[in-house]
Amino acid sequence: MFRNNYDNDAVTFSPQGRIFQIEYSEEAVKQGSVVVGIASKKHVVLCAIKRNAEELSSYQKKLFAIDEHCGIAIAGLTSDARVLSNFMKQQALGHRLTYGRAMPVASLVDEIGTKAQINTQMYGKRPYGVGLLVAGVDEDGTHLFEFKPSGMTEELVGCAIGARSQMARTYLEKNIDAFADASKEELIKHGLQALHETLVQDKELTIDNTAVGVTGFKEGSKNKAEPFKLYEAAEVKQWLDAISESKEGNEGEGMDVDE
Amino acid sequence: MFRNNYDNDAVTFSPQGRIFQIEYSEEAVKQGSVVVGIASKKHVVLCAIKRNAEELSSYQKKLFAIDEHCGIAIAGLTSDARVLSNFMKQQALGHRLTYGRAMPVASLVDEIGTKAQINTQMYGKRPYGVGLLVAGVDEDGTHLFEFKPSGMTEELVGCAIGARSQMARTYLEKNIDAFADASKEELIKHGLQALHETLVQDKELTIDNTAVGVTGFKEGSKNKAEPFKLYEAAEVKQWLDAISESKEGNEGEGMDVDE
Amino acid sequence: MFRNNYDNDAVTFSPQGRIFQIEYSEEAVKQGSVVVGIASKKHVVLCAIKRNAEELSSYQKKLFAIDEHCGIAIAGLTSDARVLSNFMKQQALGHRLTYGRAMPVASLVDEIGTKAQINTQMYGKRPYGVGLLVAGVDEDGTHLFEFKPSGMTEELVGCAIGARSQMARTYLEKNIDAFADASKEELIKHGLQALHETLVQDKELTIDNTAVGVTGFKEGSKNKAEPFKLYEAAEVKQWLDAISESKEGNEGEGMDVDE
Amino acid sequence: MFRNNYDNDAVTFSPQGRIFQIEYSEEAVKQGSVVVGIASKKHVVLCAIKRNAEELSSYQKKLFAIDEHCGIAIAGLTSDARVLSNFMKQQALGHRLTYGRAMPVASLVDEIGTKAQINTQMYGKRPYGVGLLVAGVDEDGTHLFEFKPSGMTEELVGCAIGARSQMARTYLEKNIDAFADASKEELIKHGLQALHETLVQDKELTIDNTAVGVTGFKEGSKNKAEPFKLYEAAEVKQWLDAISESKEGNEGEGMDVDE
Amino acid sequence: MFRNNYDNDAVTFSPQGRIFQIEYSEEAVKQGSVVVGIASKKHVVLCAIKRNAEELSSYQKKLFAIDEHCGIAIAGLTSDARVLSNFMKQQALGHRLTYGRAMPVASLVDEIGTKAQINTQMYGKRPYGVGLLVAGVDEDGTHLFEFKPSGMTEELVGCAIGARSQMARTYLEKNIDAFADASKEELIKHGLQALHETLVQDKELTIDNTAVGVTGFKEGSKNKAEPFKLYEAAEVKQWLDAISESKEGNEGEGMDVDE
Amino acid sequence: MFRNNYDNDAVTFSPQGRIFQIEYSEEAVKQGSVVVGIASKKHVVLCAIKRNAEELSSYQKKLFAIDEHCGIAIAGLTSDARVLSNFMKQQALGHRLTYGRAMPVASLVDEIGTKAQINTQMYGKRPYGVGLLVAGVDEDGTHLFEFKPSGMTEELVGCAIGARSQMARTYLEKNIDAFADASKEELIKHGLQALHETLVQDKELTIDNTAVGVTGFKEGSKNKAEPFKLYEAAEVKQWLDAISESKEGNEGEGMDVDE
Amino acid sequence: MFRNNYDNDAVTFSPQGRIFQIEYSEEAVKQGSVVVGIASKKHVVLCAIKRNAEELSSYQKKLFAIDEHCGIAIAGLTSDARVLSNFMKQQALGHRLTYGRAMPVASLVDEIGTKAQINTQMYGKRPYGVGLLVAGVDEDGTHLFEFKPSGMTEELVGCAIGARSQMARTYLEKNIDAFADASKEELIKHGLQALHETLVQDKELTIDNTAVGVTGFKEGSKNKAEPFKLYEAAEVKQWLDAISESKEGNEGEGMDVDE
Repeated sequence: MFRNNYDNDAVTFSPQGRIFQIEYSEEAVKQGSVVVGIASKKHVVLCAIKRNAEELSSYQKKLFAIDEHCGIAIAGLTSDARVLSNFMKQQALGHRLTYGRAMPVASLVDEIGTKAQINTQMYGKRPYGVGLLVAGVDEDGTHLFEFKPSGMTEELVGCAIGARSQMARTYLEKNIDAFADASKEELIKHGLQALHETLVQDKELTIDNTAVGVTGFKEGSKNKAEPFKLYEAAEVKQWLDAISESKEGNEGEGMDVDE
Repeated sequence: MFRNNYDNDAVTFSPQGRIFQIEYSEEAVKQGSVVVGIASKKHVVLCAIKRNAEELSSYQKKLFAIDEHCGIAIAGLTSDARVLSNFMKQQALGHRLTYGRAMPVASLVDEIGTKAQINTQMYGKRPYGVGLLVAGVDEDGTHLFEFKPSGMTEELVGCAIGARSQMARTYLEKNIDAFADASKEELIKHGLQALHETLVQDKELTIDNTAVGVTGFKEGSKNKAEPFKLYEAAEVKQWLDAISESKEGNEGEGMDVDE
Repeated sequence: MFRNNYDNDAVTFSPQGRIFQIEYSEEAVKQGSVVVGIASKKHVVLCAIKRNAEELSSYQKKLFAIDEHCGIAIAGLTSDARVLSNFMKQQALGHRLTYGRAMPVASLVDEIGTKAQINTQMYGKRPYGVGLLVAGVDEDGTHLFEFKPSGMTEELVGCAIGARSQMARTYLEKNIDAFADASKEELIKHGLQALHETLVQDKELTIDNTAVGVTGFKEGSKNKAEPFKLYEAAEVKQWLDAISESKEGNEGEGMDVDE
Repeated sequence: MFRNNYDNDAVTFSPQGRIFQIEYSEEAVKQGSVVVGIASKKHVVLCAIKRNAEELSSYQKKLFAIDEHCGIAIAGLTSDARVLSNFMKQQALGHRLTYGRAMPVASLVDEIGTKAQINTQMYGKRPYGVGLLVAGVDEDGTHLFEFKPSGMTEELVGCAIGARSQMARTYLEKNIDAFADASKEELIKHGLQALHETLVQDKELTIDNTAVGVTGFKEGSKNKAEPFKLYEAAEVKQWLDAISESKEGNEGEGMDVDE
Repeated sequence: MFRNNYDNDAVTFSPQGRIFQIEYSEEAVKQGSVVVGIASKKHVVLCAIKRNAEELSSYQKKLFAIDEHCGIAIAGLTSDARVLSNFMKQQALGHRLTYGRAMPVASLVDEIGTKAQINTQMYGKRPYGVGLLVAGVDEDGTHLFEFKPSGMTEELVGCAIGARSQMARTYLEKNIDAFADASKEELIKHGLQALHETLVQDKELTIDNTAVGVTGFKEGSKNKAEPFKLYEAAEVKQWLDAISESKEGNEGEGMDVDE
Repeated sequence: MFRNNYDNDAVTFSPQGRIFQIEYSEEAVKQGSVVVGIASKKHVVLCAIKRNAEELSSYQKKLFAIDEHCGIAIAGLTSDARVLSNFMKQQALGHRLTYGRAMPVASLVDEIGTKAQINTQMYGKRPYGVGLLVAGVDEDGTHLFEFKPSGMTEELVGCAIGARSQMARTYLEKNIDAFADASKEELIKHGLQALHETLVQDKELTIDNTAVGVTGFKEGSKNKAEPFKLYEAAEVKQWLDAISESKEGNEGEGMDVDE
Repeated sequence: MFRNNYDNDAVTFSPQGRIFQIEYSEEAVKQGSVVVGIASKKHVVLCAIKRNAEELSSYQKKLFAIDEHCGIAIAGLTSDARVLSNFMKQQALGHRLTYGRAMPVASLVDEIGTKAQINTQMYGKRPYGVGLLVAGVDEDGTHLFEFKPSGMTEELVGCAIGARSQMARTYLEKNIDAFADASKEELIKHGLQALHETLVQDKELTIDNTAVGVTGFKEGSKNKAEPFKLYEAAEVKQWLDAISESKEGNEGEGMDVDE
């Protein structure tokens, strides 16, 4: 009978140099509903499928504004996400108060990476059980970061995490070349299309279960940020309709939605 | 012989990314007697079945006022609930003293969510073994929140937690459309009817085992809160009588109680 | 071979959401000799059987005055009871010093409930292994509370805890209607009668093994408290004689001692 | 194969509500040589058999003066006893310095009871492995207390703890009526006789292995304390001779030493 | 069935005096992609293969500037590397602020060695799961250090760590005599050639997966440092082309790339 | 298969009330080479066999001066002994500084007893693995104490601890009557003779492996202390010669060295 | 199946009074390459074989200067040695700053012994896995100490620790009489010869793998210290040549190198 002796805490290496509890914590991310992020030169969008355990509840929140220039999408343990998002809000606010301007997105992401690492090297704590996509803009341009429970953070042009997110990533990879110069509308449609790929049969994106968040630069401006904005319910209808039409025309193949 | 190696504390992930101790703590909620909450645009009601272990005791308290604008219903470990309700009272009081007005319900709920999460990420502690329904009003309107031992909090229009609460939830789902515009009286009757659905054969709601709590806006006012008020004993008789009649007329089918 | 994996500390939930160490601690209460409490509108009495491990010792103390208006009866680990009773004395004294009047009984009971809960949620501690009956009077009237190792507290009109206390509770339930308006003398006799029910064959209540504690309002006064008073040895003889006679007349049936 | 899962620390209850480590610690008391205490209205005596592991050592000390009005006899772990006796000396001294008079014996005993209880409710500590008999006088009269590792303390008129102490207790029980009014000399003889009962065959009480400690009120005074005094070696000869004679006359039956 | 009892934490020696958790942590280094470092008298170069888990991500960063005169290459857990590199930046900055000049490389390396050792001698922590190559210049000349999770640090003239790094080390050993006097360009080409040796079949170094970092003394100066500079993407093309040509001419044998 | 569950730490009692780790720590004393102590009315001597693991080392030190009036002999873990002897030196020095005179030997011994007891009642520590003989003089006369890892301390007239010390104790017991009035020379010879008894065949006491320490009162003075003095190498030759002669004359029987 | 229950931490005694983790830590010393130390009346020399895991690395450092008058040789865990040597440097420096002169070698050694002992008596730490030879001079003359992981320290005239050090010790023992009056050159040659004895077949001492450290008194001075000096590479050639010649002449027998 096989008995793994090295997977009970995050302070024990396996003989192969692996830390299983960190790996297991990344499985918790896969338990969450899928979120997708895409960055163009001008915008970053986050799209999420909101789960609804029972009809009575409003749908679970998946997107959160952190600061004017920055928002996150979460997949995994919601209450762990609250801790991290509160921490990010405090960091961002503190930076504004100290320096009089928005915190660079990479610095903000670095802070949660460092915070999360501590929990992977101290007995009696556990890694956070949540993954984040962080969307933001700053003087360096638009940014999309993935944060993992291990504390690892990585900048990407497109990403999907959560249940069945592999399908979304496949879609993103196929269309990666279209992102850099895409308009805000196009980006959103790509994001929703990627979400759509993850649905199990008979499920559809609806105005109830879909959320979109966008930040970016103002039209015609190189460095004026548009505040992070959440779109829900009726606001997402136009885009859902658009991808629905587009999908009908592209059934069965990797979609080429762009104009 | 199956031996689960990952379910002894809340700081260990299973290989599938689950934290069993959090899941087990949510079972503790199901050990408590059922409580129901419903929110309309103007009111929020909490209804509870009070257990009575032996005849000598007064019935176990299930509803507690937290502040003028806010009350809770509990299901699970009573002494854990005391800790959380004392904490909420202090938070609400502190807010009043600092800002001169009632604490927004969402903020209050956020505080206990954050407090509870700590116990799910630190060895040597355990998650709280109690679930709460939080009813309140503030400038944003009426609110009904569910709090779970994991620290997760969620806003809903109707909810039931505790033993056999699934039956109550089924009732609420069937009647969900009637809640938003229901009067206070109607809301209470819906709540009691939902409670009634959870009773095992031969059990009935009585003036002894039933408690009702209500908060909301004053008649004809948009933002003047009615203080959270508990109704017990004789005060609940009228409503019990009402649903009893109504039930006789609706035996055997999903009730349509509304006028 | 069945091996319970979840019952070694109070910070582990079983898969059913139970915390076995809390349940086991309540077994410790059943190891103590029985104590009975009854409240009327005017008085609260505590009656106890004192054990005597060997002839040389005076009988183990079971009743303790906490403050002028309040006393307790204990069942379980005597040295745990000392800790709690010292704590209560300090709380009560502190309240008097700060506010210039007696601490409300419910507040006092709340304090020990909160203190005891801590030990049920922290690794390395254990729940208290003692149950208490708290008798007191304050502006709200007479009070009888039960305190359990879990930290749960409950107000009752009559209660019995400790070894074979179920027999006493049965007696109390049969006679519950007589308590509210009973005189002090009658209450005491009910308490002793309830104690008597728990005796194993050939054992009797004697002036050596019986203790009685009473608090209440002064004759003809609504809010003047009579200090908590202990009756032992010869002082309890009259009541023992009374119930002895009464019992002879009522052998074999639920007693109706009242006038 | 039976495997007790609940007996490794003092913070785990067994399913029956027992704490085995506390019970085991009380076994440590039985590993110590026997000590006997008896209280009359005027005096309290402590008698001890001193063990002598090897001829080279002076005999192990069993009796210690704590303060002028108070002394102890120990059975169990000598180095644990040192900790407790040092603590008692500090308490007694502190009381004298603060209040200008001797500490009431019951208060002193209460302090060690409370101190010992802490070790029964904290992981990483263990109960003290020693039992004490505390003899003292104060304004309330003479006192003899037993202290147990659990923190339990009890006032008695006669007591014996340590190896084979049951035999001594049996003697004491038989003669209990003679103690209250016995003279100091008589009390000592009763104590030594009780010690004698615990001896295994061929062992005798000698001036080397016997120690006696006495405190009490001065002849003809109601409240003037005689300082706690230890009698060893030649000083105990007269009493040993006396009981030896008396014993010859009473061979084979429960002795009635009294005049 | 063999069961290793000594490999669960870094505070337990095996009977042979080994600490397995330290050894296992060094396996974590081998999980990272390979990095190579070479020092000449005038320059130090770091070369890395960047992994790309999926197409969407930019490649994982492997080289980091610590201070003007110093940079690192990492292999192993990225989030552990972040902690160490942040620590090094703080140390280097603090030294500059305190002494007004760059921190000697050996001192900087000593600091992380000492920091890492702590984690190998304290229960509840784990060794860092990352290896570093530290390249820097100071008054003593050029320096290349290897840092291991054990806290061991060692100065070398050439080194390679990470997956399949043995092949790179073999290349370095064959060409060791050429390093001391090599030009910057030659050093880089040696580094890339060493990297190339570690590739599995069909893999190639590309401008996307290759990174180069260089520090050294300014042309014609003995002690003026050239700031640590990273070369990526198009900047590495010339060198990749160079080794590609050279490789064609040297297929099948240990390369002698030098002029 | 017998598995002792109670012998892994000093905070667990066995069901018989024993603490095995304390008992095991006393075995560590038996691993040390033997030391002997004897007290007369005027002097205290310590004699030791020094082990020599290899020829290169000077012999292991066994005797240490603590203060002018006091020295110790050790058997067991040398580095534990260092901790205790440093502690004693500090205590003795502190006493001199505070009170202007030497610390009473019993107080000094009491301090290490108390210090050692702590390690027997706290998880995560272990009892000291060393036994001490403490020789000293003060106003009460000469003193010889034995200190055990349990924290137990005992005054004796003669004692031997360490490997095969039973043989030495047997010698001491046979000659115990000669000690009280023996001269310093005689005491030393008794000590060496006792040491000699513990030797395995073919081993002899030599000037290299024998150490002697003496303190006492100055010739003709009742309370002027002779500083603790160590005799090694050539200084012990006279005594070794003396007992060698004496032994020749007494071969085969318990020696009667005295004049 | 044998299962050792007592060897997992340094705070558990085996039933025989042994602490296995301390013994295992001393095995770690044997994992290090061998170092040799020899003291004459005028000088102390340390000689070491430096290991070279791979050709690229400079050889591992084995000798370190601590202060002007003192140096060490290490065998075992290099990063543990760094901690101890940094500690020694701080102690020595602190002593110089406080007292204006070099720290006595014995005091310095005592400090690390005391520091190391702590790690053998506290759960959650481990003994240091390194042995040291400490060479120094002070007012008392020349000193060579061995430090062991247990905290034990011992003064010797010659010593060797590390892998296969037994062969070196045998050499030293054979030649011990020659050391006291040997010149510096002779001492070094003895040290190197002892090192040579530990080599496995076909291995030779070379200028790359051999290091020598020397401290002592200046020529013709009794108390002027020569600063601790390291000799490496070409500097050791003369001595290697010398012992090589000498060895040729003495092949096959215990060498008598001395003049």
